[in-house]
Amino acid sequence: MVVYHRVTAEELYRFAHDVFAAAGATEATADALADNLTQGELHGMGSHGVSRLMPIYVQRLQAKGTNPDPQITLLKRHKSTAILDGDGGAGALVARHGMGLAIDIAKEEGSGWVAVRNSSHYGAAFITARMALEHDMIGFSTTASVPLQPPHGGRERALGTNPLCWCIPGGEHGDIIFDMATSVVAKGKLLLAIMEGKPIPEGWALDEKGYPTTDPVVGDKGVMLPLGGYKGYGLALIAEILASILTDAEFGPHINNLYGDITLPQKTGHFLGAIDVSSFMPPERFRARIDELVSFMRSIPLAPGHEEILIPGEPERRKAEEYGRDGIPIAEDVLASHNAIAEGLGVEPLQVLD
Amino acid sequence: MVVYHRVTAEELYRFAHDVFAAAGATEATADALADNLTQGELHGMGSHGVSRLMPIYVQRLQAKGTNPDPQITLLKRHKSTAILDGDGGAGALVARHGMGLAIDIAKEEGSGWVAVRNSSHYGAAFITARMALEHDMIGFSTTASVPLQPPHGGRERALGTNPLCWCIPGGEHGDIIFDMATSVVAKGKLLLAIMEGKPIPEGWALDEKGYPTTDPVVGDKGVMLPLGGYKGYGLALIAEILASILTDAEFGPHINNLYGDITLPQKTGHFLGAIDVSSFMPPERFRARIDELVSFMRSIPLAPGHEEILIPGEPERRKAEEYGRDGIPIAEDVLASHNAIAEGLGVEPLQVLD
Repeated sequence: MVVYHRVTAEELYRFAHDVFAAAGATEATADALADNLTQGELHGMGSHGVSRLMPIYVQRLQAKGTNPDPQITLLKRHKSTAILDGDGGAGALVARHGMGLAIDIAKEEGSGWVAVRNSSHYGAAFITARMALEHDMIGFSTTASVPLQPPHGGRERALGTNPLCWCIPGGEHGDIIFDMATSVVAKGKLLLAIMEGKPIPEGWALDEKGYPTTDPVVGDKGVMLPLGGYKGYGLALIAEILASILTDAEFGPHINNLYGDITLPQKTGHFLGAIDVSSFMPPERFRARIDELVSFMRSIPLAPGHEEILIPGEPERRKAEEYGRDGIPIAEDVLASHNAIAEGLGVEPLQVLD
Repeated sequence: MVVYHRVTAEELYRFAHDVFAAAGATEATADALADNLTQGELHGMGSHGVSRLMPIYVQRLQAKGTNPDPQITLLKRHKSTAILDGDGGAGALVARHGMGLAIDIAKEEGSGWVAVRNSSHYGAAFITARMALEHDMIGFSTTASVPLQPPHGGRERALGTNPLCWCIPGGEHGDIIFDMATSVVAKGKLLLAIMEGKPIPEGWALDEKGYPTTDPVVGDKGVMLPLGGYKGYGLALIAEILASILTDAEFGPHINNLYGDITLPQKTGHFLGAIDVSSFMPPERFRARIDELVSFMRSIPLAPGHEEILIPGEPERRKAEEYGRDGIPIAEDVLASHNAIAEGLGVEPLQVLD
């Protein structure tokens, strides 16, 4: 049995912020990391939240594998494009800078495209991409990550589950936030099956010899499978090219694992974009037409076994509303281990609601 | 038994060009259409080639549903972005203009993004997107199309199988040309199963009541399924937003079917992009690193049941090499029906090799 406590988003942010600051992060890094992980947790993405990521982020900051005080540098700007060097800083901070730059560029140029190198694990892709929305812009974000997937037809790890994320400004029905891993499922779902002692469906993973497996422990040692075979492989490859090659960052096996040698920088790349809707039409008209498109999708009759047509990002938005109202659940063992980290750093423990 | 004749690409182009010209197309339209469909056929994509598309394109030109002499107009240019009105012209011509404009803009601005409205069916996405490659640019192309897929959880048609295509300049190992439909498979594969009287795998299509079917005839009346459920749905929705909403073109059910009322313009939108690699690094370095990435993919050991690791676009490139050498196969009944169209227009019949 797992017991969950509940915590407010404000308190979770306070706690994570203070922990990161005590681990040596500057205010900018502590704020970016705490906000990123709190938002991940609030949206029901524990795999991209405080629960999973705070401990390893703290260790990396302390070991200087993540630079706690990076000098993020604009290496080049050419009209609608730019190259940013993250100086080994926290991905949440570097990506925030990168997306801010893409937005600033798009205000002038109609679109902005920022290639980021020397960064690290940036959490959930949507957290930075959605920064574009309040500026009436479409946001795009992709990152490379440590290899977990083979190319289609292979049996060894070659490509990350590299996400592709687009955020679209909407109207009354809300924004569209589409953030997908290019594998059939994110690795977190396989890890959850291990924790719960449940089998996984065939098609999620291969064993080390390249045969399909329904045993998550075996799959964990093998490879995750790309979405739809060669299509997911192609999408992951395009993400890798934008994030690792066009940025002149490291690719695939040359990226240092988040959980590997924590004294080494990860050397991850991201590719971030913003398209200013007002270059194409008045944003109010765009948002109204998105509403029309959403209404049409929702009007489609259901297939048997389905209860609702959802819009990308809607499940996470509902989760954030629920958790924002009732508090964010934190498992008891996570609470204990995280408070132990905080205690070691002289930080006040996480104050739970119940 | 199906008997195939073989024809050179040059002769297929000559034939299609003369047929389109005789059907009333201007030289620019006849050239764009003939080139587009010949390239589709040459790359083994009969569903996007002369075989399937020439007759309906001719009918639309004659009925003026496709404008045979469009005045393609630049409605707006703002730095890295532009809006193009296709004046109801052939998609192959309008998209060629749009991609040319995206490339010209990218030469100045580092990237170029062109929203196209009032266009029509543009054939295979890669044919225009790859125009970027010779300029050391990354090409991107997407288009909306007549609804064939439901949103995830639905049972009626709402979204096209909207393609997403990226073309990446490569080195010695060749360019990467990734052009995917956002459905599990393209509709053409289901139509092929009908022609061959074979069942389709479960997961390709639903019947009209929303139940899975393995009967392609039943699936043809129902819906194609999005790739990987909610992920393919999300990708198709993003494509629809870029191609239909940001362009102020029609979306989903408001697009006129290629095979519907041929006197009406289709009102299709496309979204085309070019990213100039030289804004980020010397193109030679980029191409060399793409080679390195491709070599790494090919070095991955095979999973059982697989013979080779392929790079996106490689199967089609090989097909084009084979057909370029040996001739392009044209089925006997297609040859007869196409020659009958040509005869009616006073055009010399297609000269086959054997």
